[in-house]
Amino acid sequence: MKLLESLNWRYATKRMTGEALEPAEVANIIEAARLAPTSAGLQPIHIYVISDPAIKQQIQPIAFGQPQIVESSHLLVFTSWDKITDERIDKVHEDMNNLRNLPMETTAHTVTNLKQLFSTFSEEEQYHHTAKQAHIALGVAIAAAAELGVDATPMEGFDKAALDEFLKLRENGLRSVVLLALGKRQITEDWLYPLKKYRQAKEDFITEL
Amino acid sequence: MKLLESLNWRYATKRMTGEALEPAEVANIIEAARLAPTSAGLQPIHIYVISDPAIKQQIQPIAFGQPQIVESSHLLVFTSWDKITDERIDKVHEDMNNLRNLPMETTAHTVTNLKQLFSTFSEEEQYHHTAKQAHIALGVAIAAAAELGVDATPMEGFDKAALDEFLKLRENGLRSVVLLALGKRQITEDWLYPLKKYRQAKEDFITEL
Repeated sequence: MKLLESLNWRYATKRMTGEALEPAEVANIIEAARLAPTSAGLQPIHIYVISDPAIKQQIQPIAFGQPQIVESSHLLVFTSWDKITDERIDKVHEDMNNLRNLPMETTAHTVTNLKQLFSTFSEEEQYHHTAKQAHIALGVAIAAAAELGVDATPMEGFDKAALDEFLKLRENGLRSVVLLALGKRQITEDWLYPLKKYRQAKEDFITEL
Repeated sequence: MKLLESLNWRYATKRMTGEALEPAEVANIIEAARLAPTSAGLQPIHIYVISDPAIKQQIQPIAFGQPQIVESSHLLVFTSWDKITDERIDKVHEDMNNLRNLPMETTAHTVTNLKQLFSTFSEEEQYHHTAKQAHIALGVAIAAAAELGVDATPMEGFDKAALDEFLKLRENGLRSVVLLALGKRQITEDWLYPLKKYRQAKEDFITEL
């Protein structure tokens, strides 16, 4: 299984060379994220793909000065819906049924159930739910990057409110979730590179029933 | 890029054949999840790997009768820490520094910062944070299953409190997050199989800056 080798090769690269990735590499990673499954198929996520050095420089202080922000080739900002509205649920089902040449009645019962379910969530719980879906896509994107031999560093350490403000996410009904810096490792400067990967022991990670 | 083909092949299989997967296949998928990155490397996740038919049968009503629960070869229950305690942060750093032959002082500053950070989270926010990490592992596991040609259906539709109770998760400091049914598609019975995969259009999925 090639993916396991790739996952062992990858690590949360702390320093990158600044080299640009091939556009096809970035496109493949984004496509993998787009194909990721989401709860009830709502796809409540959107990715900002940032390669402009000036914009990355402005984001760096929002991410506590982490060097990968500016040393990456592309910085992906995973965002998700700020809330799950009836209109958004309707829109997804309209588009999906149109694609499948099915009448809206086909999923009317599901739509009613979803609206009922999410009406019991607070707005903050709705955001946590959509942010979780962004994390599935993050996982798939990380696997895709590893397969390509592209370094990918997920980063949750940033000021979410400040990034929302900088990218005007709230105006677009979105909130920032997590960053993924894509680029090439600069191993002579990276303190993490020589250290062993640390994961839970297999026997601690699972319970078999 | 082989993974994209695999991701296009996969779908959220609604009916499975009940056939058993090869143990090596299941082990590979779990290993991929174990290698997934987590925020600050805390790895606040644990997977219940359920192949016992009697236990799957008891879980089926908790998951609203969904057939994949009992038709799967293995049902993975992704769980995560109920809360992020100082003791848990210390334990991870002790194990990590031991593996790397580093003194505890190496990460003392990080440990202090993490404790400070999570002390500002409510217990529910701590759980949402750990559950998000489980979703990264879910994404990586789904990619791994797709690469192997193993069907994998993520399921968020279940009674979390009831499953926590059934598996005695709270006693172990865990809460259920999401299910992943692993098995083989039964295409003649599966209403979703013949329908086109629906995803956001590429241009709606990203904003390039």
